[in-house]
Amino acid sequence: MIILGIDPGIAIVGYGIVECKGNRFKALDYGAITTDANTPSPERIDIIYREMLSIIDKYNPVDLAIEELFFNKNVKTAIKVGQARGVEILAAVHKGLEIYEYTPLQVKQGVVGYGRADKRQVQEMVKMLLNLKKIPKPDDAADALAIALCHGSSLKFKEMFKME
Amino acid sequence: MIILGIDPGIAIVGYGIVECKGNRFKALDYGAITTDANTPSPERIDIIYREMLSIIDKYNPVDLAIEELFFNKNVKTAIKVGQARGVEILAAVHKGLEIYEYTPLQVKQGVVGYGRADKRQVQEMVKMLLNLKKIPKPDDAADALAIALCHGSSLKFKEMFKME
Repeated sequence: MIILGIDPGIAIVGYGIVECKGNRFKALDYGAITTDANTPSPERIDIIYREMLSIIDKYNPVDLAIEELFFNKNVKTAIKVGQARGVEILAAVHKGLEIYEYTPLQVKQGVVGYGRADKRQVQEMVKMLLNLKKIPKPDDAADALAIALCHGSSLKFKEMFKME
Repeated sequence: MIILGIDPGIAIVGYGIVECKGNRFKALDYGAITTDANTPSPERIDIIYREMLSIIDKYNPVDLAIEELFFNKNVKTAIKVGQARGVEILAAVHKGLEIYEYTPLQVKQGVVGYGRADKRQVQEMVKMLLNLKKIPKPDDAADALAIALCHGSSLKFKEMFKME
C-alpha cells in the first residue's frame, strides 16, 4: 500500500510517498510544495490544494499521514499554517484518502523508537529504513517521509497484533 | 453587486449575503454552517467546503469578505479555526470570488463608524442598514452580515473618491 506523508506548512509543505510491502518500505518520491510569501494568501492555499491533488493523482496513495501542529507562542503563524493544513487535509479527503494524524512525539517513537530522538537521528533512520544514499532534502521532505514511515509502522503493528 | 460575508469558524461559520445597489443594502440570506464537535475534523472541513460552494452557487456573490482571526492565547483553537478558515477561503477562490479580509476593528469602523463599538451596537446597525425587523440570529450570522456591510461601505467609499 502507498502512504502520503505530509509535513504541513504554508511556505514549504514537505511530502513523501512511501510504499509499504510487508516489512519493507520504499520511497517512491519526496519533495516540497513551496509558495512565495509575496503571493496573496488565498492564492497560496489554492496552489497548495492543487499541487496536493496532482501528487495524489500521480501516486494514488491510500492513506494520508499528516503531522499535528504545535506552536508555543506565535498565534499569527499558527492561524496561517492552520489555514494551509486545512486545505492539505481537504485535498486528501477529496481524493478519498483516509486521514491519520500523528504528533511529533509519535513520529519520533514510530521511526526511531525513542520519543526524545533529535532531528538528525530521525533523518538517519529515514535514510536507513528507505535505503537511501543520502538524507533527503529539504528537511521538510525528510520529515514528511518520517511521518509516512510512522504510519506504515503503526499499520504493521496493528497487523501483527490483529485478533482473528 | 452581491457580497458574501463570512464570520470564520469550525463549529459555527456565520454567513451573510448582501446585495449592494448604490447606497442601499439588502440582505438576501443569512445563517450559519454548523459542524458537530464529535465529527472527525477532516470531515468537518469538507462539510464546510461543500456548504460554502452551495451557498455561492445559490447567490453568485462577486466578493468574499471574511474576518481576520485574532486569538490571544489558545493556540490549539487558533490552528483548528485556521484550518476551517483556509477551506472557507479556498471554496471562494474555486468559485472565482475576489477575497477581502477585514479586522474586527475595520468591521466596527465600517459599520458603526466607531472602532470601540460593542457587539450590540454593531448588531443594531446591521439591523438598521438592512432594514430588518429583528437582530439576525445566531450572532455569527449577524457578524457575517456586518463583515459584508463593511466591505460594501468600503467599496462605496472607493467609488466616491475615484479619480477620473
